[in-house]
Amino acid sequence: MRQVSVLGVGMVKFGRYPDTPVEELGAEAVVGALADAGLAPAAVEAAYCGHVSQGMTLCERVLDRAGLAGIPAVNVENACASSSTALNVAWLAVAAGQHDAVLVLGAEKMRRGLLPLTRLAEGDLEGLLGKTIPALSALFASRYAADYGLTARDLAAVAVKNSRHAAGNPYAQYGRPLTPEEVLASPMISTPLTQLMCCPTSDGAAAAIVVSDALARRHASRAIRIAASHLVGGVCIGTRDVPNATARAARQAYERAGIGPEDVDVAEGLDYTAMAEILLYEDLGLLGKGEGVKAVRDARGGRTGHFVFSPGGGLLGRGHPLGATGVAQVAEIVWQLRGEAGARQVPNARVGLTHAAGGVITGVDDEASVTIHLLSR
Amino acid sequence: MRQVSVLGVGMVKFGRYPDTPVEELGAEAVVGALADAGLAPAAVEAAYCGHVSQGMTLCERVLDRAGLAGIPAVNVENACASSSTALNVAWLAVAAGQHDAVLVLGAEKMRRGLLPLTRLAEGDLEGLLGKTIPALSALFASRYAADYGLTARDLAAVAVKNSRHAAGNPYAQYGRPLTPEEVLASPMISTPLTQLMCCPTSDGAAAAIVVSDALARRHASRAIRIAASHLVGGVCIGTRDVPNATARAARQAYERAGIGPEDVDVAEGLDYTAMAEILLYEDLGLLGKGEGVKAVRDARGGRTGHFVFSPGGGLLGRGHPLGATGVAQVAEIVWQLRGEAGARQVPNARVGLTHAAGGVITGVDDEASVTIHLLSR
Repeated sequence: MRQVSVLGVGMVKFGRYPDTPVEELGAEAVVGALADAGLAPAAVEAAYCGHVSQGMTLCERVLDRAGLAGIPAVNVENACASSSTALNVAWLAVAAGQHDAVLVLGAEKMRRGLLPLTRLAEGDLEGLLGKTIPALSALFASRYAADYGLTARDLAAVAVKNSRHAAGNPYAQYGRPLTPEEVLASPMISTPLTQLMCCPTSDGAAAAIVVSDALARRHASRAIRIAASHLVGGVCIGTRDVPNATARAARQAYERAGIGPEDVDVAEGLDYTAMAEILLYEDLGLLGKGEGVKAVRDARGGRTGHFVFSPGGGLLGRGHPLGATGVAQVAEIVWQLRGEAGARQVPNARVGLTHAAGGVITGVDDEASVTIHLLSR
Repeated sequence: MRQVSVLGVGMVKFGRYPDTPVEELGAEAVVGALADAGLAPAAVEAAYCGHVSQGMTLCERVLDRAGLAGIPAVNVENACASSSTALNVAWLAVAAGQHDAVLVLGAEKMRRGLLPLTRLAEGDLEGLLGKTIPALSALFASRYAADYGLTARDLAAVAVKNSRHAAGNPYAQYGRPLTPEEVLASPMISTPLTQLMCCPTSDGAAAAIVVSDALARRHASRAIRIAASHLVGGVCIGTRDVPNATARAARQAYERAGIGPEDVDVAEGLDYTAMAEILLYEDLGLLGKGEGVKAVRDARGGRTGHFVFSPGGGLLGRGHPLGATGVAQVAEIVWQLRGEAGARQVPNARVGLTHAAGGVITGVDDEASVTIHLLSR
């Protein structure tokens, strides 16, 4: 397998775009990524697009809108891991020598309200009784509180941190730092999670240009190496007490990259709630079991332990257009590792991690796909 | 890149399954493919699932139902080329050495009536005026009739041939040979195409086990070599007068495989109408321009020229559950090349081709993705 790098990234400001076609959001991100990479459209050999519910052949439609019609296109769906899975497939195509320069994108326009969960229509009792994602995360919070003494104020601290990062990110949906009081006073979604401890509903798009080592060397100052691109499947969200797929994916990715969790400076993961972010510190091996809440209390300058989590604002602050999130996370890490992250720059960031997970959480089990990407300069 | 083979295939009888979950159709095909390959479920390292509109993470849901939970899963969508694109990604994963044995599947339950075309909602004038797939194919038929003297009876002959093949295929939706009179007398859909010259609405699933050379050698009598797996993008359906993506894809695939169109014994393509099949003879390079209609008139024993097209009944006879079609085509070719095709067996078939194409056909352009697979024993 060949060495693979990210040469350019682009995204649109996440938010709500009721009057803009999803193809236009996608094309804007693509044009931005090409400009950032300094590549002509003709250099792009294939495209991989992650989305969940944007209709048939979104990739082809975006390529057409962006002036890249006529190249091989693959649409990939893996729920919240859609565009990170697309990146995994794109990485493989370049690593295997099939292509030298490919485009990865993610784009999504979300409906209003709760996500339609696939199995509800088939008489799934847990789903019908309200096993939504925020409710499930609230159950984890209750358990974590019983085990390790988590309080609502700790959860609010995560939301406050991510809002501060988002306020420094021109691409984030939320542009203003929140106070703990505001977070705690926002409407209760599922005790102890208030609205501002849950990610918003968002539209958006993000894109990345992924290239071979030979191409990357010509642009050495801008290329960020993909040290590992790893996809696993398994039980992920439901049962906290079994070794879960996120932990397994992270362990295997660290091993492949020859990078340890202690080396990670910046990380973006699926902080769909403040509780989810704290659990990720531990599942990704960045902190030990039960240490997440202590790290939140001891946090200084956005650092939770030795790393900064959600430097771009995370899902809580940047927003979460499902199919766009995976590539948006990578865009943030690329900016951080290049030192181009402006007001939110983490000093001297050299190693970054992104995590995404997607699956059906209702039903008997919790089958999910998890992706881990390790990036380094 | 390593040599890759198909070791086992399975499918469910295509038809209408209003009371069967799509996961169950998919799982039945998966279990069949594993049994056909003689592999234990534990040998399967990853799964790639093509579907168009079956909700989030169908692959993970089918794996769970089939007892294969916990392996990496990728959902791929490329309209009618969804599961053939999934096969292209799976082929790459094995060819690159990432995996030794993977599962490819396609599954779809179709709604009633015309497909919802993505751009209709966005004020696409051609779509609103009725540029559906049968109407577009009817325009091609009128043009072909003007250029080369095609008659409605020629189109009926294709539908009759495919119904005869389907009648010998226990997995086909249609089980009875049609007469030319029946085909011509069926309701007019878009002149000159009658209902029985258009593919039906279908539910179904198909699966294949794709393996490395080392594994294939242990099962040499059953393994069928993938001589080329090729994906291209481009203008495909709309403009007959420009070199189209199907022709380009076929040319490149023949070159990669070192196989010429004259070597092809059996082929399955997207015969979504009888006209589409005749055009495919020519676009795939199997016959020269304008020779398709002559070959239909001179056909003997199902052979159109030197090859048998749609030996399993094609879309017209086997049915067309969008996401399932690509892998179902490969299943048919595998059975043919192994000599296991029963009543519809083409004697001494050694080289087979499958073609699929998917894209948005309304709007200014006709962006599509096209896959070609060449298989040989």
